[in-house]
Amino acid sequence: MNDARVPVTVLGLGMMGRALARAFLAAGHPTTVWNRTPGRADELVAAGAVAVDTAAAAIAASPLVVVCVRDYPAAEEILGTARDALAGRVLVNLTSGTSAEAREMAGRVAGRGAGYLDGAIMMTPPGIGTPEAVILYGGAPEDFTANEPALRVLGGGTTFLGADPGLPSVYDVALLGVMWGTLNSFMHAVALVGTEGIAASTFLPLVKDWLLGVSSFLSLYAEQIDSGDYAASDATLETHLSPIGHLIEESRARGVDASIAEYTRTLVEKAVSDGHARDSYARIVEYFGAPAARA
Amino acid sequence: MNDARVPVTVLGLGMMGRALARAFLAAGHPTTVWNRTPGRADELVAAGAVAVDTAAAAIAASPLVVVCVRDYPAAEEILGTARDALAGRVLVNLTSGTSAEAREMAGRVAGRGAGYLDGAIMMTPPGIGTPEAVILYGGAPEDFTANEPALRVLGGGTTFLGADPGLPSVYDVALLGVMWGTLNSFMHAVALVGTEGIAASTFLPLVKDWLLGVSSFLSLYAEQIDSGDYAASDATLETHLSPIGHLIEESRARGVDASIAEYTRTLVEKAVSDGHARDSYARIVEYFGAPAARA
Repeated sequence: MNDARVPVTVLGLGMMGRALARAFLAAGHPTTVWNRTPGRADELVAAGAVAVDTAAAAIAASPLVVVCVRDYPAAEEILGTARDALAGRVLVNLTSGTSAEAREMAGRVAGRGAGYLDGAIMMTPPGIGTPEAVILYGGAPEDFTANEPALRVLGGGTTFLGADPGLPSVYDVALLGVMWGTLNSFMHAVALVGTEGIAASTFLPLVKDWLLGVSSFLSLYAEQIDSGDYAASDATLETHLSPIGHLIEESRARGVDASIAEYTRTLVEKAVSDGHARDSYARIVEYFGAPAARA
Repeated sequence: MNDARVPVTVLGLGMMGRALARAFLAAGHPTTVWNRTPGRADELVAAGAVAVDTAAAAIAASPLVVVCVRDYPAAEEILGTARDALAGRVLVNLTSGTSAEAREMAGRVAGRGAGYLDGAIMMTPPGIGTPEAVILYGGAPEDFTANEPALRVLGGGTTFLGADPGLPSVYDVALLGVMWGTLNSFMHAVALVGTEGIAASTFLPLVKDWLLGVSSFLSLYAEQIDSGDYAASDATLETHLSPIGHLIEESRARGVDASIAEYTRTLVEKAVSDGHARDSYARIVEYFGAPAARA
């Protein structure tokens, strides 16, 4: 154990909490753990963790306290049992929730004399501690800076978004939304090529290459969104309509649900009928109802 | 000009047709070009192309004939003006359309004593001729093999899908569907973070990293789809419901259209209520209505 490593506490030993504690232990942090229901700490204790009986004792044990439980009410309840223990600590809340919940909790924790960082983990438990694990943080910059070496143990993609503790939750769901959008359209595509006897694994390499291309389109579109100049330099919205129609037609002809493509057609048709036929796909951002930030 | 290069003809000189002809010229192919309306060939003639007045003359000029026009009826009409010229040639049709149109045209062209390859270009005109340009082909394997060196000039990602001339169109719209799904959810995400004053270009690097992660999830899901064993090893469908709810809540609270996230919730709720709560997201493929191919 390296005495230069800050002692840490992990509250909540679900799959994710255990992965966090394992990463701290592997990096040589003195690690105290607690879980509401007992029996979750055995493997961690065997790896060198100290398990304690109360959240208050766990919080008292370390200057850096990480909480990762089911939801914010559960986190609130745990912290409520440890009223005075929190003062002087920095609480890092990696529980999933909304930005409003994060901002409320930041206020309450500050009122108890503790620092607060809210975080969003963009990784499944097995990836915790790897260079690829992205964890997004918001809160007092000095609290982040002081604890950054310890937090970086949890993921190489440790990223500070700024002083607003609500931002990680917004980024979290926004990024998850991109994931669901990609996954849903992938499932649709696999169902479609499946009707031709093509296995998902046969189709996969083309999708992966293609997603690299799509990712590169996003750079162009992000620039256009920030500038507000949507003039197409690649493909106009109007030229998307014909292949969207083909996708709907191929889907229907094969008994594959086409509603995901119909949604796209509705968006693009609306933009074209509003006079944006010659704009790029980036114009579609305006059809989500709130203006994007302008750089 | 390299005499070892097969002479090629390009019919249709829209943005894409001109890009194709430029790539052939750059690689040293004797190139004949034709367009229904004159005046599109000047730049190509300056680069060494021969422009002719009729489609029949253009087809007669080369053993390899590429057609890339607005749609299949337009391609049919052009070929109809050149009835006998096609015999003995290989026609490569890079026009966008449906698999049914491609299969019909393959039959008609075969009836005229010509080889036929149908192709789908997964690239915008400026990317033609680059290593990244993916072009998918279907048709007689011997026609593809004989012409592969010339076709590879158009894109490093030249890929033969098999003997079915309808497959490139199916792959084309399936891949475009993945693009639209990703783009739509990106636009939604940008609108969402935009309400917090975050510029699209600030958000972009996180999205690009995240898409690499999402792409890696697809490998796991493709395996599960092909095996029919959807047991979650990463995240269960049930665990998706809470963050999907947060995305809807964050969107609505900011006046951002949430229907794209509501679509996801409907899909996942249906799967959970059907008893698939412990399955991975790959199970969603079955909700597109047609069973995927089993490897």
